[in-house]
Amino acid sequence: MSKSVTITGAAGQIGYQLAFRIASGQLLGADEKINLNLLEITPALDALKGVAMELEDCAFETLGEISISDDPNEAFKNSDFAFLVGAKPRGPGMERSDLLQENAKIFSAQGKAINENASSDIKVLVVGNPANTNALIAMSNAPDIDQNAFTAMMRLDHNRALAQLASKLGCHSTEISNMTIWGNHSTTQYPDISNLRVTGENISNRLDQAWVKDDFIPRVQNRGAEIIKARGLSSAASAASAAIDHMRDWSLGTKENDWVSMAIPSDGSYEISKGIIYSFPVICENGSYSIVQNLEINEFSKECMEISEKELLEEKAAIEHLL
Amino acid sequence: MSKSVTITGAAGQIGYQLAFRIASGQLLGADEKINLNLLEITPALDALKGVAMELEDCAFETLGEISISDDPNEAFKNSDFAFLVGAKPRGPGMERSDLLQENAKIFSAQGKAINENASSDIKVLVVGNPANTNALIAMSNAPDIDQNAFTAMMRLDHNRALAQLASKLGCHSTEISNMTIWGNHSTTQYPDISNLRVTGENISNRLDQAWVKDDFIPRVQNRGAEIIKARGLSSAASAASAAIDHMRDWSLGTKENDWVSMAIPSDGSYEISKGIIYSFPVICENGSYSIVQNLEINEFSKECMEISEKELLEEKAAIEHLL
Repeated sequence: MSKSVTITGAAGQIGYQLAFRIASGQLLGADEKINLNLLEITPALDALKGVAMELEDCAFETLGEISISDDPNEAFKNSDFAFLVGAKPRGPGMERSDLLQENAKIFSAQGKAINENASSDIKVLVVGNPANTNALIAMSNAPDIDQNAFTAMMRLDHNRALAQLASKLGCHSTEISNMTIWGNHSTTQYPDISNLRVTGENISNRLDQAWVKDDFIPRVQNRGAEIIKARGLSSAASAASAAIDHMRDWSLGTKENDWVSMAIPSDGSYEISKGIIYSFPVICENGSYSIVQNLEINEFSKECMEISEKELLEEKAAIEHLL
Repeated sequence: MSKSVTITGAAGQIGYQLAFRIASGQLLGADEKINLNLLEITPALDALKGVAMELEDCAFETLGEISISDDPNEAFKNSDFAFLVGAKPRGPGMERSDLLQENAKIFSAQGKAINENASSDIKVLVVGNPANTNALIAMSNAPDIDQNAFTAMMRLDHNRALAQLASKLGCHSTEISNMTIWGNHSTTQYPDISNLRVTGENISNRLDQAWVKDDFIPRVQNRGAEIIKARGLSSAASAASAAIDHMRDWSLGTKENDWVSMAIPSDGSYEISKGIIYSFPVICENGSYSIVQNLEINEFSKECMEISEKELLEEKAAIEHLL
């Protein structure tokens, strides 16, 4: 048996990291063969051919067939996992609404191609920004696919928050659990430590609240800009790594006594409006996710969660005519 | 327990692939913590800081401490594994002898730093070109370290050859075994299929000799240029992948009934001159490698092996005064 994995924007910085880590077995383990279907825009097909040649040159045990294309209908054929990485970046003088429109075109076409061609139990992860609203557009254009198959990536924010907390607490990031990123993958996201545990012990009350509000939260919200400032390029390897974490946990399950953050179609939990792709704490098992319910939400959290909800409703309004 | 891994040129294209795959556990497996010591030239320290931030942001289970530096003495402190990736590339108007001299300075300094600071059972892999002669220089400057600790990367050539053979034979690259790359990591290398097996069966006589000589051998020798032409950039992800394969097999052992190609200090086997770093077929077990002996060498092979030997002797002569 083998699984087909589609990566869009596969010759870009994130795609170039993602393709090799997936081909080497890090998505589904050493026993599952992966076929890679790589999609790019037409001008990038030569570079994509180079990526495919390098993938062959790795002689990976877990890699089966590789296909490259600029046609979404081909790239999503029988796809079991789709990483939608390629997106139009914000150009000079471009308004946020222009950015939303330009990407809406890409993601509506890809949603349609998924609807027509993909495996019926495909899992879709949107990485290309604005990721949550792009996922909403793809979902709306794929009426025959279960809506819960469409998700957007918050795992990079989730991992970034764990790294900051580990540094503050002087422990390893794997000792920290029960942290949540709520909302939109943007600077309005809300990293929430209300239920934070270290090696199983609840320590949320032991963190200095001034540090949390004035340092931790804005640091996580703005980490992308901090990376760009240092590297001169946006996060690529860490984004690819988070994308694999998201899909792997969704497929193989989350760790016991912990949860992860995934942007998923809101079902109204925690009074978040339905009809947007919003990040919740979720537990994954048997290839499905479910929202962790009954967490206590204090006034500060409620306010932060609403700010990000409001932003997503505004993004939705800007592209409503395309849904 | 944890192991310290040094990567030089860690903010470059290969380093950016290598660091994340090693940190994610692909060098020594999921049970061994890795400390990463990243070295760059001073002007690249900001970019390197960005790489370190992204590594933190991955929240890898297998990653311990990260250090960044422009000082080889710091970067090689207690190092168990060293990937020497950073090298001076050939600039416009630069002669090959200039290239050798410029790199000789880098690798003699790094050899000295390894000698003074590294773990006494360090394993060193030189990836930066001219890799074989750079490894020779590093080795010569580290008199207190076992000479066999110094190797250069032929695994990319080895993997490229497997991929070409798999494509020709219509099988998976993992079904092919007992292939050898002899010589220098340059266009004089000799990909040798005299002992080739597919799923254990010797099939060397079944391959069309014209295809082997006119297509397969030059294709493997010139694959680097083919990738550059397609991607517009040199091989990075496949080079990083091969570097991990080389070190992992050296540490954890090669597959039964097969061997790999590693450039190692010649001990005179197969009448190859001592005093150069030449690629042989090797078997690894218990953390050591040994040359596969008593392979039959026909006239054609002998001639090809000598051409690459001659090139390495010439490279050595050009930097002899620095050894």
